[in-house]
Amino acid sequence: MDQHDAVALAAEFDTDLADRIRFVYELDKLKSELRQTLLADGSRRENSGEHSWHLAMLAMVMAPHAKEPIDLDRAIRILLVHDIVEIDAGDVDIYDYEARKAKEAEEVIAADRIFGLLPEPEASELRALWDEYEARETPEARFAYSCDRLQPFLLNLAIGGESWTRRGVSGSAVKAVNSKMVDGLDGVWEVVEKLIDRAVDEGTILDP
Amino acid sequence: MDQHDAVALAAEFDTDLADRIRFVYELDKLKSELRQTLLADGSRRENSGEHSWHLAMLAMVMAPHAKEPIDLDRAIRILLVHDIVEIDAGDVDIYDYEARKAKEAEEVIAADRIFGLLPEPEASELRALWDEYEARETPEARFAYSCDRLQPFLLNLAIGGESWTRRGVSGSAVKAVNSKMVDGLDGVWEVVEKLIDRAVDEGTILDP
Repeated sequence: MDQHDAVALAAEFDTDLADRIRFVYELDKLKSELRQTLLADGSRRENSGEHSWHLAMLAMVMAPHAKEPIDLDRAIRILLVHDIVEIDAGDVDIYDYEARKAKEAEEVIAADRIFGLLPEPEASELRALWDEYEARETPEARFAYSCDRLQPFLLNLAIGGESWTRRGVSGSAVKAVNSKMVDGLDGVWEVVEKLIDRAVDEGTILDP
Repeated sequence: MDQHDAVALAAEFDTDLADRIRFVYELDKLKSELRQTLLADGSRRENSGEHSWHLAMLAMVMAPHAKEPIDLDRAIRILLVHDIVEIDAGDVDIYDYEARKAKEAEEVIAADRIFGLLPEPEASELRALWDEYEARETPEARFAYSCDRLQPFLLNLAIGGESWTRRGVSGSAVKAVNSKMVDGLDGVWEVVEKLIDRAVDEGTILDP
């Protein structure tokens, strides 16, 4: 028996439940989607499944620094779903602006397919969370986006900046990308900027 | 610069924020805590970080099957924190009842240390979620526990039951452990039981 057999057998008894089980299996693929970032101990690349968990936790921990009043639970849900399209579209380097732009249409197709596997209303609910993240028009989406800047920054710093130097990313690029965290977090960027300056001084990040 | 330097430098500017950053680094270790379960494609063992993300998503997908009215957002938060103690205490085989019992005191010490790294009120809030999961006295904790039975069951089934046969776990043991999902999920165990029966017939699970 494999996952397709399991879904087919479940469908003999309850097609709605079988669709939900198929979606749970589909999600499992996000654990094999590798990011540019390494774990804090440098042992391997981070995957997008564990990254999403880490971000949801980071949101709980950084909630007092939210720039605007937020519904923290919706921010958590946004972060849980924000990378699911990578199952089809893959992860894109945040410092590769052209690749990111080119990926946008592909991500919409991925969202249509993946969230479309679910029965309603969950299909629309999860899709709405992803759309909200992409649009950055709500305080929750801005807070979530800022959390998604802070987490890889901290991991890259922990391994001595290897993922920045490997990609030739300079201090000014690190500042340009990460200063966007002021949109959703209060009192964090000021400290992160000091960390970047120190990292540049030490050679952990290339000179601007 | 490593993570300890980063936390120390952040503490020069904001000790409360530095404590939160240290906790975010601490959480990263859960991604290196390996479970008995393999990914659905059999490629490697699952870690407890990505498992926690998968469970939070499964909760959103299976919410219509909740046995009692629940606050889904609290169930999600419970699932996000429920395995954090494994950073110190490690993962224990669900089918090894004696080892699980022996681990309980160790897990409490782990919870004291890890959640205690955080400033208040987040330290108490996260600890309360873990305590709630362990006690199983609320509808949210029972729902979360049932989700935590369903997910590894589905993964084990997808790889042809290797993690059951490797451990010598029989169909009756699989039923005894997983039938507990009736406490938090409605209309799921009935289908899971059919899957177990078929898997035993096919030899995917050892005969009861």
